[in-house]
Amino acid sequence: MSKPASFPAPGDKIASEEGTIFAPRFDADGLVPIVATSAATGEVLMFAYMNAEALARTIETGEAHYWSRSRGKLWRKGEESGNRQRVVEMRTDCDQDAIWLKVEQSGADAACHTGRRSCFYRVVPLGRAPDSALTLIWVDAERQFDPSAVYRHGDDAKGTLKGSE
Amino acid sequence: MSKPASFPAPGDKIASEEGTIFAPRFDADGLVPIVATSAATGEVLMFAYMNAEALARTIETGEAHYWSRSRGKLWRKGEESGNRQRVVEMRTDCDQDAIWLKVEQSGADAACHTGRRSCFYRVVPLGRAPDSALTLIWVDAERQFDPSAVYRHGDDAKGTLKGSE
Repeated sequence: MSKPASFPAPGDKIASEEGTIFAPRFDADGLVPIVATSAATGEVLMFAYMNAEALARTIETGEAHYWSRSRGKLWRKGEESGNRQRVVEMRTDCDQDAIWLKVEQSGADAACHTGRRSCFYRVVPLGRAPDSALTLIWVDAERQFDPSAVYRHGDDAKGTLKGSE
Repeated sequence: MSKPASFPAPGDKIASEEGTIFAPRFDADGLVPIVATSAATGEVLMFAYMNAEALARTIETGEAHYWSRSRGKLWRKGEESGNRQRVVEMRTDCDQDAIWLKVEQSGADAACHTGRRSCFYRVVPLGRAPDSALTLIWVDAERQFDPSAVYRHGDDAKGTLKGSE
């Protein structure tokens, strides 16, 4: 972990899509989007970003590390809350610009800084053009922990200060 | 569908996280990231983006529409390939800057422009620091269709010209 994380430069279309070299494609901010799902249930738990260092640490340790855009820092999931994510499997997509993690959550089994298991606890109703009557429907929204009792500085998923990860 | 798609401006942190008003948070490019999973199996099928119009059309029709960054245009999934996605459920996350779709795929049951069911057909091995020996492992990589026989202009997921969606 002493030398800086580095990955091969992305190859051409054929190499990216049909090759075996992992050459992740970071965006202009040096980040790659991450989808974390529950290895147990398949539900989407959270959406976040990694920079190269977070990705390298996740690969090496098998513990999910992310890049907090709001706080501008690397963070190991659960470093404050105790709600860690062990990565059961990591996959990359066709053009290697997105990552899917299947994780096992420890601690309170909560990915979301609001205390919920998943960040996706509200359904958007379908079937008519969205207008002011469109109202979100709450599902699976029970809190697994009380965020005000866990976070001192908002130091976990999405922070608690800015409301964006 | 005649007037331009519009959504309420994002509210403050409490409104975003604990409210019932759907006020999606688009990024600087006017896009919101989308995770599509299989309603049947829970696997992640693809990662893409929507602009406000794609999101509004998806909500109204229940058919997945995306914004192609490589082609700079709205596209209804499957408009060329026939591999459409019916949205069974749409969810937003805590701060409303990401969307999760559970979909049923029709046609060849393939989300990926390479012909595979999911774009995530390669595993990144874990447990040691990434280096040149890190080799992707292929899984669930059978092609459901032959992309060269389906796409005339690369007009579907991720395009076939630029290798990025």
